[in-house]
Amino acid sequence: MALADTRFATRRRALAAKLAGQRIDMMLVTNLIHVRYLSGFSGSNGALLLSKDLNAHICTDGRYVTQIAEEVPDIEALIARPCAEALLGRIEGPRRVGFEASYVSVEQLESLQEICGEDVQLVPVSGVIEEIRLTKDSIELERLREAADIAATAFKDLLAAGELAVGRSEREVAADLEYRMRLGGGERPSFDTIVASGPNSAKPHHGAGERRIEKGDLVTIDFGVHTRGFNSDMTRTLVMGEANDFAREIYDVVLRAQLAGIEAAKPGTALVDVDRAARDVIVEAGYGDYFIHSTGHGIGLEVHEAPSASLSGVGVLRENMSLTIEPGIYVPGKGGVRIEDTLIITQGMPEIITDIKKDLLVM
Amino acid sequence: MALADTRFATRRRALAAKLAGQRIDMMLVTNLIHVRYLSGFSGSNGALLLSKDLNAHICTDGRYVTQIAEEVPDIEALIARPCAEALLGRIEGPRRVGFEASYVSVEQLESLQEICGEDVQLVPVSGVIEEIRLTKDSIELERLREAADIAATAFKDLLAAGELAVGRSEREVAADLEYRMRLGGGERPSFDTIVASGPNSAKPHHGAGERRIEKGDLVTIDFGVHTRGFNSDMTRTLVMGEANDFAREIYDVVLRAQLAGIEAAKPGTALVDVDRAARDVIVEAGYGDYFIHSTGHGIGLEVHEAPSASLSGVGVLRENMSLTIEPGIYVPGKGGVRIEDTLIITQGMPEIITDIKKDLLVM
Repeated sequence: MALADTRFATRRRALAAKLAGQRIDMMLVTNLIHVRYLSGFSGSNGALLLSKDLNAHICTDGRYVTQIAEEVPDIEALIARPCAEALLGRIEGPRRVGFEASYVSVEQLESLQEICGEDVQLVPVSGVIEEIRLTKDSIELERLREAADIAATAFKDLLAAGELAVGRSEREVAADLEYRMRLGGGERPSFDTIVASGPNSAKPHHGAGERRIEKGDLVTIDFGVHTRGFNSDMTRTLVMGEANDFAREIYDVVLRAQLAGIEAAKPGTALVDVDRAARDVIVEAGYGDYFIHSTGHGIGLEVHEAPSASLSGVGVLRENMSLTIEPGIYVPGKGGVRIEDTLIITQGMPEIITDIKKDLLVM
Repeated sequence: MALADTRFATRRRALAAKLAGQRIDMMLVTNLIHVRYLSGFSGSNGALLLSKDLNAHICTDGRYVTQIAEEVPDIEALIARPCAEALLGRIEGPRRVGFEASYVSVEQLESLQEICGEDVQLVPVSGVIEEIRLTKDSIELERLREAADIAATAFKDLLAAGELAVGRSEREVAADLEYRMRLGGGERPSFDTIVASGPNSAKPHHGAGERRIEKGDLVTIDFGVHTRGFNSDMTRTLVMGEANDFAREIYDVVLRAQLAGIEAAKPGTALVDVDRAARDVIVEAGYGDYFIHSTGHGIGLEVHEAPSASLSGVGVLRENMSLTIEPGIYVPGKGGVRIEDTLIITQGMPEIITDIKKDLLVM
């Protein structure tokens, strides 16, 4: 028999505690990432209803009868369609039921309201589960390390195998890296892999195209893998053959900025100050206009999640948050550099889970 | 200079014609797939505002200044954040503005309403753009064929290279197939590749795990690739080494069902009848209880889109719709078979764009 994993009950307890503060009797969870976070169910259709006294009901459709029994042994499963409506239809007596206002569409809310009798009042709730997700528990941290390890190992093996080489196309290098991550245990890339070579390295959101890598190119590789619900994210920039003065200069500035960002990433530090720590180095070097994005973001069940280390970042870092630090300089027509690690915030120096050296690597 | 692609203007004209019928002055488009469909813009943040007299405005953020100018030369772009709010804020005079009620969240609607003065009335609109997308124009059909070709070629090459073999894991086979699709021009798999071997073939939603393929296994491979905005989807089931009577029998039934579904897929045929044509063959063979999903779905910008060939399918087929035909039989503990093609509906027999033979292939 599958044993219930206590971490899910712990997370549900955290949610129930927050509901009480908002005078909500029950919370209807429809975002599938949140259903998974609170129950372990990983199917593509489902909803969860949790009462403030920790009574939980989960619903999915007939495709997942076996799977939900295996993944969620501790919650009685209802098999019905549509799921959220089926759960609401079983509520008895007057209740204030919270719903996820950031994810429920206007159309779906209408459908939910039709199901509810006069006794049930639907109340919009935002950001409550996201706030619980801000700090990671030990199993989430383990999953994050696992995803980061798969990606880092694939990248090291890619370099060792000579697959990043002059004459190869960006697409071929991306395909090789993704293939290695897949064989290493990844389910899919966390996002479209970036292999940005030469002038393309000046475009922070370049994908991986047909351009063939040339001698002297800066090549920025930004990649991650999704495994068991969690994501990784890291970036390295290399130079092919020989680095010219421009490449050496901006690489040095970005690396110093990135190390300053890591240095600042401690519990109690405001997110805006983490951003500033990295940004100041780039501004002081005269490249401020070429750092056109924020310094970092949380990562977990989603590739980009709270918190945000940016000019408008909100709040302070706490222990066991995850955060990327990824400053960059992008000079149109000349090239760019970005260096990104994923950190876990600890009481001391942050743990860097994307463990690949950062000296300018000349291939 | 980039030339405006007239197909986008044609699609916008189709939308404007529908707005007039609903007494809507302007439509705010926020679903990014629809923004791309109506403008060509492929960035990850944006919104489009289209008036009934075909005035269009598009908005994205600073990351996409260059890209939007290249992709959308015929619409003036606003660079601002958040996009939908920025577009609404520029409306002057009394207007009824439609918004996409299936995609706008309850929370976002509140934010949109705050922007609107008393003059602007926000009106929920559902399914209008989806209806236009139901029949594909010539460029969409070309893109669908292109995606299907990349996937089919990768699959044939996988078999020719002996990469589907006894002793290999499902994950390894999936990785090889995905790698070949990527090198062939795909941007990413359309969905998580299924390689379901032996007993796993009886699970229609199995992924690709650590099980090693054994002699005698049925192996169901369901795969697709995303390229230039469009998706492919196809399934083949093979048998390793030798096929036993059970495998031969259910393969034969599923193949006959699939051919019956294709035969039925003509303009004017009700979607429920397409489902029935395939389903009847399976029911008559005594396996009706083991065909536990619908017969097919439309495919295009999304892997699953309207129409649906199912027991509850709505409407009739029309020329230039896309449709998968994918019956299956899944006998728990024994194994399963699914065969899936993607069709384009034509006046005569449908065009099968997933061009791989369907005799039971014994590897």
